[in-house]
Amino acid sequence: MARVSQEHLDARRRQILDGAALCFARNGFHATSMQDVLKEVDLSAGAVYRYFSGKEELIGAIVAEVMGEVRAAFEEAARQSPPPPPDVLVATVLGRTLEARGFLGADGQPAFPRLVVQVWTETARNEELAAVLREGYDAVRAAWTAVVRAYQRDGAMRDDLPADDVARTMIAAAQGFIVQQSLFGPVPVEVLRNGLRALMSMGRTSKGS
Amino acid sequence: MARVSQEHLDARRRQILDGAALCFARNGFHATSMQDVLKEVDLSAGAVYRYFSGKEELIGAIVAEVMGEVRAAFEEAARQSPPPPPDVLVATVLGRTLEARGFLGADGQPAFPRLVVQVWTETARNEELAAVLREGYDAVRAAWTAVVRAYQRDGAMRDDLPADDVARTMIAAAQGFIVQQSLFGPVPVEVLRNGLRALMSMGRTSKGS
Repeated sequence: MARVSQEHLDARRRQILDGAALCFARNGFHATSMQDVLKEVDLSAGAVYRYFSGKEELIGAIVAEVMGEVRAAFEEAARQSPPPPPDVLVATVLGRTLEARGFLGADGQPAFPRLVVQVWTETARNEELAAVLREGYDAVRAAWTAVVRAYQRDGAMRDDLPADDVARTMIAAAQGFIVQQSLFGPVPVEVLRNGLRALMSMGRTSKGS
Repeated sequence: MARVSQEHLDARRRQILDGAALCFARNGFHATSMQDVLKEVDLSAGAVYRYFSGKEELIGAIVAEVMGEVRAAFEEAARQSPPPPPDVLVATVLGRTLEARGFLGADGQPAFPRLVVQVWTETARNEELAAVLREGYDAVRAAWTAVVRAYQRDGAMRDDLPADDVARTMIAAAQGFIVQQSLFGPVPVEVLRNGLRALMSMGRTSKGS
């Protein structure tokens, strides 16, 4: 038997993760069975269980992957001098993340935002998933904090407020934008970019408050 | 039989809503039965069903009430001249909303944020709740937009970007902050206030972008 290449293993893993994400996004995490996932990816149980022990591991892997991408994007931004301003940065990273998962359609609507909100609900009763999410969140927050420190060092942002508070707020804006998409359908990321941009223009009034 | 006063009816309604919110926050909307609610509020089925037909109507009433409070707070802010700046306004309204529901504890943790995220997930399969939420969101958004128009009219915010985009972004920041509380526990609202405040100081860089 020929040795299976790493490339092939990675592609297979990718195929399973995408199929599982599609199932979860379409029917919900709880209503999806491993049988549904097998059918979606058109692989045998043996082929799939070689990579993932079950639904829990699949959803954990999907979350870890998304968070890893987002973290990498902010780490890259922190290395730029100066880093892109927050309105541009948030819109770029969020737009890229949503676009990369445009294949997660349900009823013709992009379903990724619904999957994200489902994951948040699921963490209330799934310790392992909660741990994956917290680890991802902490890493994204640390990367964002480095970007904020650069703004403050460059004199682009007042430096008498905790960088971590800004990081949490920027992440909150992106999370809330995902919530709105999950509830009310697609909204262009330019909306969030414009909102942040307008807020950034209020310098004169905020300094004194 | 003595006529029951409106005041008594209102208090009874309040008692049922608070008890139901407590049950939902503690055990989740799906895991809660009407029996659980009856036990929590210590009333007969007849007394409770006089006000609410079931769980769906209860959760809808809770959502409508919260959204109504938030809307009223922003409408009041829009009437002030000038309205409070966004960092102060968001933190005040969110702080008040969370505080008013501090009684919704579960395992010693404030459970209101978890209830909110649950409601978002629930709307994916509950058309009626989705409609209540959309109506509440649209009203809050309209009230916020009026506040943003006042900032722009006063020259406190650049006026070449849609006021509605700013409203959505401010609501997103608050929603995302609730997400973080539901996932990782309580965070003081001052974090969000500081984050917005720091962002508002970036005027110089945003104008040119």
